[in-house]
Amino acid sequence: MPVIDPSKVPVKTGSIYPEPYASMMKGRSSLRLGDAGGLTQFGVNLVTLEPGALSSLRHWHLNEDEFVMVTEGICTLVQDAGPVEMGVGDCAAFPAGSTDGHHFINKTDKIARFLVVGTKAKSEVATYSDVDFRVEIGGGKATFTYWDGTPFAGPR
Amino acid sequence: MPVIDPSKVPVKTGSIYPEPYASMMKGRSSLRLGDAGGLTQFGVNLVTLEPGALSSLRHWHLNEDEFVMVTEGICTLVQDAGPVEMGVGDCAAFPAGSTDGHHFINKTDKIARFLVVGTKAKSEVATYSDVDFRVEIGGGKATFTYWDGTPFAGPR
Repeated sequence: MPVIDPSKVPVKTGSIYPEPYASMMKGRSSLRLGDAGGLTQFGVNLVTLEPGALSSLRHWHLNEDEFVMVTEGICTLVQDAGPVEMGVGDCAAFPAGSTDGHHFINKTDKIARFLVVGTKAKSEVATYSDVDFRVEIGGGKATFTYWDGTPFAGPR
Repeated sequence: MPVIDPSKVPVKTGSIYPEPYASMMKGRSSLRLGDAGGLTQFGVNLVTLEPGALSSLRHWHLNEDEFVMVTEGICTLVQDAGPVEMGVGDCAAFPAGSTDGHHFINKTDKIARFLVVGTKAKSEVATYSDVDFRVEIGGGKATFTYWDGTPFAGPR
Protein backbone atom coordinates (compact mmCIF):
# COMPACT_ATOMS: atom_id res chain seq x y z
CA MET A 1 0.00 0.00 0.00
CA PRO A 2 1.74 3.15 -1.15
CA VAL A 3 -0.04 5.54 1.24
CA ILE A 4 2.44 6.09 4.04
CA ASP A 5 1.18 5.94 7.61
CA PRO A 6 3.45 8.42 9.45
CA SER A 7 2.56 6.82 12.80
CA LYS A 8 4.39 3.69 11.62
CA VAL A 9 7.52 5.56 10.46
CA PRO A 10 10.24 5.68 13.12
CA VAL A 11 11.19 9.16 14.34
CA LYS A 12 14.87 9.68 13.59
CA THR A 13 16.84 11.90 15.96
CA GLY A 14 20.57 12.47 16.47
CA SER A 15 23.21 13.29 13.88
CA ILE A 16 26.10 11.65 12.09
CA TYR A 17 28.20 14.76 12.89
CA PRO A 18 31.06 14.45 15.37
CA GLU A 19 30.93 16.69 18.43
CA PRO A 20 30.55 19.54 19.01
CA TYR A 21 28.38 19.71 15.87
CA ALA A 22 26.10 16.77 16.76
CA SER A 23 24.86 18.54 19.90
CA MET A 24 23.97 21.59 17.84
CA MET A 25 21.29 19.49 16.09
CA LYS A 26 19.24 19.13 19.29
CA GLY A 27 15.53 19.67 18.66
CA ARG A 28 15.64 18.32 15.11
CA SER A 29 13.96 15.06 14.15
CA SER A 30 12.70 13.52 10.94
CA LEU A 31 10.51 10.88 9.37
CA ARG A 32 12.08 9.08 6.41
CA LEU A 33 8.92 8.91 4.33
CA GLY A 34 10.58 7.95 1.04
CA ASP A 35 12.44 5.04 2.63
CA ALA A 36 9.21 3.95 4.35
CA GLY A 37 7.53 3.91 0.93
CA GLY A 38 10.28 1.78 -0.62
CA LEU A 39 11.95 4.52 -2.68
CA THR A 40 15.67 4.19 -3.40
CA GLN A 41 16.47 6.91 -5.96
CA PHE A 42 15.82 9.93 -3.76
CA GLY A 43 15.15 10.49 -0.07
CA VAL A 44 12.04 12.31 1.17
CA ASN A 45 12.15 13.35 4.82
CA LEU A 46 9.62 15.28 6.88
CA VAL A 47 11.81 17.29 9.24
CA THR A 48 10.51 18.73 12.52
CA LEU A 49 12.33 21.66 14.09
CA GLU A 50 11.53 22.51 17.71
CA PRO A 51 11.80 26.21 18.58
CA GLY A 52 15.44 27.22 18.17
CA ALA A 53 16.46 24.08 16.28
CA LEU A 54 18.64 23.95 13.15
CA SER A 55 18.07 21.65 10.18
CA SER A 56 21.84 21.09 9.81
CA LEU A 57 25.05 23.04 9.76
CA ARG A 58 24.97 25.39 6.78
CA HIS A 59 26.20 23.32 3.82
CA TRP A 60 26.12 22.59 0.10
CA HIS A 61 26.07 19.29 -1.78
CA LEU A 62 28.49 18.40 -4.55
CA ASN A 63 26.44 15.70 -6.29
CA GLU A 64 22.89 15.78 -4.98
CA ASP A 65 20.02 18.08 -5.90
CA GLU A 66 17.88 19.17 -2.93
CA PHE A 67 14.35 20.59 -2.72
CA VAL A 68 12.42 21.88 0.29
CA MET A 69 8.76 22.79 0.93
CA VAL A 70 7.72 24.22 4.30
CA THR A 71 4.66 22.35 5.61
CA GLU A 72 4.12 23.88 9.08
CA GLY A 73 5.15 27.06 10.87
CA ILE A 74 7.94 29.35 9.72
CA CYS A 75 11.47 28.28 8.76
CA THR A 76 14.25 30.81 8.31
CA LEU A 77 16.47 29.88 5.38
CA VAL A 78 20.03 31.16 5.79
CA GLN A 79 22.43 31.49 2.85
CA ASP A 80 25.39 33.71 1.95
CA ALA A 81 23.03 36.65 1.35
CA GLY A 82 21.48 36.31 4.81
CA PRO A 83 18.17 35.06 6.24
CA VAL A 84 14.80 34.71 4.47
CA GLU A 85 11.60 33.63 6.21
CA MET A 86 9.64 30.85 4.54
CA GLY A 87 6.03 29.97 5.42
CA VAL A 88 3.76 27.02 4.63
CA GLY A 89 3.89 26.13 0.94
CA ASP A 90 7.06 28.11 0.25
CA CYS A 91 9.63 26.13 -1.73
CA ALA A 92 13.37 26.37 -2.35
CA ALA A 93 15.75 24.41 -4.56
CA PHE A 94 19.47 23.81 -4.14
CA PRO A 95 21.08 22.37 -7.27
CA ALA A 96 24.02 19.99 -6.85
CA GLY A 97 27.32 21.83 -6.94
CA SER A 98 25.92 25.27 -6.14
CA THR A 99 28.33 26.51 -3.45
CA ASP A 100 25.97 28.88 -1.63
CA GLY A 101 25.46 26.90 1.58
CA HIS A 102 22.03 26.71 3.20
CA HIS A 103 20.27 25.60 6.33
CA PHE A 104 16.99 26.28 8.11
CA ILE A 105 16.44 27.66 11.60
CA ASN A 106 13.23 27.70 13.58
CA LYS A 107 13.39 31.16 15.15
CA THR A 108 9.78 30.98 16.38
CA ASP A 109 8.28 29.58 19.59
CA LYS A 110 6.21 27.00 17.67
CA ILE A 111 7.03 23.75 15.88
CA ALA A 112 8.14 24.15 12.25
CA ARG A 113 8.23 21.40 9.66
CA PHE A 114 9.44 20.99 6.11
CA LEU A 115 9.54 18.27 3.49
CA VAL A 116 13.00 17.80 2.00
CA VAL A 117 13.87 15.77 -1.09
CA GLY A 118 17.45 14.83 -1.99
CA THR A 119 18.92 12.59 -4.63
CA LYS A 120 20.64 9.45 -3.35
CA ALA A 121 23.94 9.71 -5.21
CA LYS A 122 26.46 6.85 -5.01
CA SER A 123 28.96 9.22 -3.43
CA GLU A 124 28.53 12.65 -1.97
CA VAL A 125 30.51 15.48 -0.42
CA ALA A 126 28.79 17.98 1.89
CA THR A 127 30.88 21.08 2.58
CA TYR A 128 29.98 23.27 5.55
CA SER A 129 30.04 27.01 5.02
CA ASP A 130 30.55 28.43 8.51
CA VAL A 131 32.95 25.90 10.03
CA ASP A 132 36.06 24.23 8.58
CA PHE A 133 34.37 20.88 8.07
CA ARG A 134 33.40 18.50 5.29
CA VAL A 135 31.76 15.07 5.09
CA GLU A 136 32.48 12.58 2.33
CA ILE A 137 29.96 9.78 1.97
CA GLY A 138 30.53 6.66 -0.10
CA GLY A 139 30.38 2.89 0.22
CA GLY A 140 28.08 3.25 3.22
CA LYS A 141 30.74 5.18 5.16
CA ALA A 142 31.01 8.84 6.27
CA THR A 143 34.48 10.40 6.46
CA PHE A 144 34.91 13.71 8.26
CA THR A 145 37.61 16.12 7.14
CA TYR A 146 38.56 19.79 7.15
CA TRP A 147 37.94 21.79 3.98
CA ASP A 148 41.46 20.85 2.77
CA GLY A 149 40.67 17.12 3.03
CA THR A 150 42.83 16.38 6.08
CA PRO A 151 41.14 14.29 8.79
CA PHE A 152 38.83 16.17 11.15
CA ALA A 153 40.21 16.33 14.69
CA GLY A 154 37.94 18.88 16.31
CA PRO A 155 36.93 22.46 15.46
CA ARG A 156 39.68 24.86 14.40
CA MET B 1 18.08 32.88 -5.14
CA PRO B 2 16.83 29.38 -4.32
CA VAL B 3 13.43 30.44 -2.94
CA ILE B 4 11.01 29.82 -5.80
CA ASP B 5 8.46 32.49 -6.60
CA PRO B 6 5.46 30.51 -7.90
CA SER B 7 4.06 33.63 -9.59
CA LYS B 8 7.07 33.54 -11.94
CA VAL B 9 6.71 29.85 -12.79
CA PRO B 10 4.69 29.25 -15.97
CA VAL B 11 1.46 27.29 -15.53
CA LYS B 12 1.72 24.17 -17.64
CA THR B 13 -1.48 22.76 -19.11
CA GLY B 14 -2.18 20.19 -21.80
CA SER B 15 -0.78 16.69 -22.15
CA ILE B 16 1.70 14.74 -24.28
CA TYR B 17 -0.95 12.02 -24.68
CA PRO B 18 -2.54 11.48 -28.09
CA GLU B 19 -6.30 11.83 -28.30
CA PRO B 20 -8.67 10.79 -26.89
CA TYR B 21 -6.50 10.62 -23.77
CA ALA B 22 -5.22 14.22 -23.93
CA SER B 23 -8.75 15.61 -23.62
CA MET B 24 -9.28 13.50 -20.50
CA MET B 25 -6.62 15.64 -18.76
CA LYS B 26 -8.78 18.77 -18.88
CA GLY B 27 -8.72 20.67 -15.59
CA ARG B 28 -5.20 19.59 -14.69
CA SER B 29 -2.32 22.06 -14.59
CA SER B 30 1.08 22.19 -12.93
CA LEU B 31 3.98 24.36 -11.87
CA ARG B 32 7.40 22.84 -12.56
CA LEU B 33 9.01 24.04 -9.35
CA GLY B 34 12.11 21.87 -9.51
CA ASP B 35 12.92 22.99 -13.06
CA ALA B 36 12.33 26.62 -12.00
CA GLY B 37 14.87 26.11 -9.20
CA GLY B 38 17.50 24.66 -11.55
CA LEU B 39 17.20 21.01 -10.50
CA THR B 40 18.01 18.34 -13.08
CA GLN B 41 18.08 15.04 -11.16
CA PHE B 42 14.41 14.88 -10.21
CA GLY B 43 11.31 16.83 -11.12
CA VAL B 44 9.10 18.52 -8.53
CA ASN B 45 5.71 19.66 -9.79
CA LEU B 46 2.84 21.30 -7.93
CA VAL B 47 -0.23 19.86 -9.64
CA THR B 48 -3.64 21.55 -9.51
CA LEU B 49 -6.76 19.47 -10.12
CA GLU B 50 -9.99 21.32 -10.80
CA PRO B 51 -13.15 19.51 -9.62
CA GLY B 52 -13.45 16.30 -11.60
CA ALA B 53 -9.92 16.42 -13.01
CA LEU B 54 -7.50 13.49 -13.24
CA SER B 55 -3.75 13.70 -12.57
CA SER B 56 -3.04 11.30 -15.47
CA LEU B 57 -4.26 8.03 -16.84
CA ARG B 58 -3.65 5.31 -14.25
CA HIS B 59 -0.04 4.18 -14.81
CA TRP B 60 3.18 2.82 -13.38
CA HIS B 61 6.80 3.77 -14.10
CA LEU B 62 9.49 1.27 -15.05
CA ASN B 63 12.56 3.30 -14.05
CA GLU B 64 11.48 6.28 -12.00
CA ASP B 65 10.57 6.49 -8.31
CA GLU B 66 7.62 8.79 -7.59
CA PHE B 67 6.43 10.49 -4.38
CA VAL B 68 3.30 12.54 -3.72
CA MET B 69 2.16 14.80 -0.87
CA VAL B 70 -1.31 16.37 -0.95
CA THR B 71 -1.07 20.11 -0.21
CA GLU B 72 -4.66 21.31 -0.65
CA GLY B 73 -8.12 19.74 -0.68
CA ILE B 74 -8.76 16.04 -1.09
CA CYS B 75 -7.28 13.77 -3.78
CA THR B 76 -8.60 10.30 -4.39
CA LEU B 77 -5.78 7.88 -5.14
CA VAL B 78 -6.88 4.96 -7.32
CA GLN B 79 -4.90 1.73 -7.58
CA ASP B 80 -5.66 -1.94 -8.27
CA ALA B 81 -7.25 -2.27 -4.81
CA GLY B 82 -9.60 0.68 -5.41
CA PRO B 83 -9.88 4.29 -4.25
CA VAL B 84 -8.37 5.88 -1.12
CA GLU B 85 -9.00 9.49 -0.09
CA MET B 86 -5.91 11.53 0.78
CA GLY B 87 -6.03 14.87 2.60
CA VAL B 88 -3.51 17.64 3.19
CA GLY B 89 -0.17 16.25 4.36
CA ASP B 90 -0.93 12.68 3.32
CA CYS B 91 1.89 11.06 1.35
CA ALA B 92 2.26 8.12 -0.98
CA ALA B 93 5.24 6.51 -2.69
CA PHE B 94 5.40 4.56 -5.93
CA PRO B 95 8.70 2.72 -6.35
CA ALA B 96 10.05 2.26 -9.89
CA GLY B 97 8.93 -1.02 -11.40
CA SER B 98 6.01 -1.59 -9.05
CA THR B 99 3.23 -2.59 -11.46
CA ASP B 100 0.22 -1.41 -9.40
CA GLY B 101 -0.80 1.60 -11.47
CA HIS B 102 -1.94 4.80 -9.78
CA HIS B 103 -3.54 8.15 -10.48
CA PHE B 104 -5.36 10.85 -8.56
CA ILE B 105 -8.88 12.16 -9.09
CA ASN B 106 -10.43 15.27 -7.60
CA LYS B 107 -13.91 14.01 -6.73
CA THR B 108 -14.75 17.15 -4.73
CA ASP B 109 -16.20 20.50 -5.79
CA LYS B 110 -13.09 22.40 -4.63
CA ILE B 111 -9.57 22.75 -6.02
CA ALA B 112 -7.14 20.02 -4.96
CA ARG B 113 -3.35 20.21 -5.18
CA PHE B 114 -0.44 17.87 -4.64
CA LEU B 115 3.33 18.03 -4.83
CA VAL B 116 4.81 15.23 -6.93
CA VAL B 117 8.46 14.26 -7.14
CA GLY B 118 9.83 11.94 -9.81
CA THR B 119 13.32 10.89 -10.78
CA LYS B 120 14.50 12.09 -14.20
CA ALA B 121 15.76 8.82 -15.64
CA LYS B 122 17.57 8.80 -19.00
CA SER B 123 14.85 6.59 -20.41
CA GLU B 124 11.45 5.68 -19.09
CA VAL B 125 8.43 3.55 -19.88
CA ALA B 126 5.03 4.44 -18.45
CA THR B 127 2.47 1.67 -18.79
CA TYR B 128 -1.22 2.51 -18.43
CA SER B 129 -3.36 0.14 -16.39
CA ASP B 130 -6.89 0.70 -17.66
CA VAL B 131 -6.27 1.25 -21.39
CA ASP B 132 -4.02 -0.61 -23.84
CA PHE B 133 -1.41 2.13 -24.00
CA ARG B 134 2.23 2.72 -23.15
CA VAL B 135 4.66 5.64 -23.54
CA GLU B 136 8.39 5.17 -24.02
CA ILE B 137 10.50 8.25 -23.36
CA GLY B 138 14.14 8.57 -24.36
CA GLY B 139 16.41 10.94 -26.23
CA GLY B 140 13.92 13.76 -25.73
CA LYS B 141 11.26 11.84 -27.64
CA ALA B 142 7.99 10.17 -26.59
CA THR B 143 6.84 7.07 -28.47
CA PHE B 144 3.27 5.82 -27.99
CA THR B 145 2.53 2.12 -28.30
CA TYR B 146 0.07 -0.53 -27.21
CA TRP B 147 1.07 -2.79 -24.30
CA ASP B 148 2.64 -5.24 -26.80
CA GLY B 149 4.96 -2.52 -28.17
CA THR B 150 3.22 -2.04 -31.54
CA PRO B 151 2.60 1.57 -32.57
CA PHE B 152 -0.45 3.23 -31.04
CA ALA B 153 -3.15 3.95 -33.60
CA GLY B 154 -6.08 4.85 -31.40
CA PRO B 155 -7.89 3.12 -28.54
CA ARG B 156 -8.69 -0.57 -28.94
